Amino acid sequence: MEKIKAAVIGYGNIGRYVIEALQVAPDFEIVGVVRRNAADVPAELDKYKVVSHLQDLEGVQVAILCNPTRSVEHYATEALRLGINTVDSFDIHTQTVDLHRTLGEVARKHHAVSIMSAGWDPGTDSVIRALLEACAPKGLTYTNFGPGMSMGHTVAVKAIEGVKAALSMTIPTGTGIHRRMVYIELQEGYPFGEVAQKIKNDPYFAHDETHVMQVENVDTLLDMGHGVNLTRKGVSGKTQNQLFEFNMHINNPALTAQIMVSAARATIRQQPGCYSLIEIPMIDMLYGDREELIRHLV
Amino acid sequence: MEKIKAAVIGYGNIGRYVIEALQVAPDFEIVGVVRRNAADVPAELDKYKVVSHLQDLEGVQVAILCNPTRSVEHYATEALRLGINTVDSFDIHTQTVDLHRTLGEVARKHHAVSIMSAGWDPGTDSVIRALLEACAPKGLTYTNFGPGMSMGHTVAVKAIEGVKAALSMTIPTGTGIHRRMVYIELQEGYPFGEVAQKIKNDPYFAHDETHVMQVENVDTLLDMGHGVNLTRKGVSGKTQNQLFEFNMHINNPALTAQIMVSAARATIRQQPGCYSLIEIPMIDMLYGDREELIRHLV
Repeated sequence: MEKIKAAVIGYGNIGRYVIEALQVAPDFEIVGVVRRNAADVPAELDKYKVVSHLQDLEGVQVAILCNPTRSVEHYATEALRLGINTVDSFDIHTQTVDLHRTLGEVARKHHAVSIMSAGWDPGTDSVIRALLEACAPKGLTYTNFGPGMSMGHTVAVKAIEGVKAALSMTIPTGTGIHRRMVYIELQEGYPFGEVAQKIKNDPYFAHDETHVMQVENVDTLLDMGHGVNLTRKGVSGKTQNQLFEFNMHINNPALTAQIMVSAARATIRQQPGCYSLIEIPMIDMLYGDREELIRHLV
Repeated sequence: MEKIKAAVIGYGNIGRYVIEALQVAPDFEIVGVVRRNAADVPAELDKYKVVSHLQDLEGVQVAILCNPTRSVEHYATEALRLGINTVDSFDIHTQTVDLHRTLGEVARKHHAVSIMSAGWDPGTDSVIRALLEACAPKGLTYTNFGPGMSMGHTVAVKAIEGVKAALSMTIPTGTGIHRRMVYIELQEGYPFGEVAQKIKNDPYFAHDETHVMQVENVDTLLDMGHGVNLTRKGVSGKTQNQLFEFNMHINNPALTAQIMVSAARATIRQQPGCYSLIEIPMIDMLYGDREELIRHLV
């Protein structure tokens, strides 16, 4: 069997889990890892080529982008221009359509495929939302996140003066409303009350129910578990009160990484262009004989 | 806007709900209904053409098959040969791949599209099962049905001597195991104990926990509600214990009908051939501007 030749770009939290998912996927081969500092090779990457530029790797069919979301456009464009497919987990909902257009244009021009926003939200949750609208076109969908750590909110807290370390947890209270539970270590000399008030006034928190707590050691609270409760109540045809619910409790970076690897497989099966997960058939994400997949899944 | 011209073939329980779903879909036009007895026109079909053969309707783009599952191949083949797309909710899991091949061949030959098994199981549940395998390739999925009426089991009970009327309810007890709650009216002169034992010995029931109860009036028990609890516990990459769950509580024929109408829309957007729902992008099932859908769903 001809294996799919994959490169991993970026080796942070997600990158580590992507390597693991590629190692256990029967149809993938890791060509190498792209890092800003290619001299920094941790023990677990010993057997792989580590380079600082994608073009230093040979025969790559798909690049899996594990860099911060704001650099997705840069790295994806670079890969697509080399005719290499890309997968990212871009997660700024408001900019999805713009990035879709930009990457689509580059991809078509260079006969490559880009699958964007291929995490769990946006990503597989988006597929569920689309599926449920096909089941009940009228109605309300609520996506409730957590309990789990919010990266964006945690970074926002850390930026506030007097905060030494922080963790912002997202707690679902239903109907898409979330409580923020913020745990901070204080820098010496800063009064807790004032710092807590600054956090509550921050645009990231001002509209949510926010509780700030002082702790000795934020590190002992860290856990990469996360969850979703996604509900839809709607109308099928003229029939009211159709009820749907999707729940998951997962290791956050492990799931993101696995979905990206499954999407990397799907890039091989699409026509040139850019796609979100709601634009590709689910079977294309799976390893195995197509008729066998239909037999056991349909 | 050019509307999609649909015909409904068969006017039983599902057919009625398909008409309702087409009536509220903004992009569909009902060309007519095909019935064995075209002279039998109930009041609610007054404004539609009712014919006994599909070829008596003009300009049909897609035929929605609401006949019993065993006649799907016959009606689908007939429509595809006329170059008309088809949607069915064929539900005999063991015969899916064979029908897929047969309809695929006819569809490609006549430049038409067939979307098969487009109900909720097989159908949207199949999409969820595929999605969850993309999220966690190793692990176990259990599909638990009910509580709800099983058509197949109810028919099997009715075939047993001494049974005047029957209802077989499917009750989920987890891990894909189901209890059968059977309610019967007895014909005069038949002893309950013997009839109950015959039901329990029937191949439909022999391997399941089955309880038979005698009632005065089965009709007062009938309800078209149904449900699913679908779970997967699996491994993303090398990370164990990823937990997923999908639940729904729905009007059974109303949901089936809506999914068939959404799939009818999707037939217009595929290349000639036969597809199950796991082989088509979810966005193709939805009405509306594509970028707008991406904006609000992804």
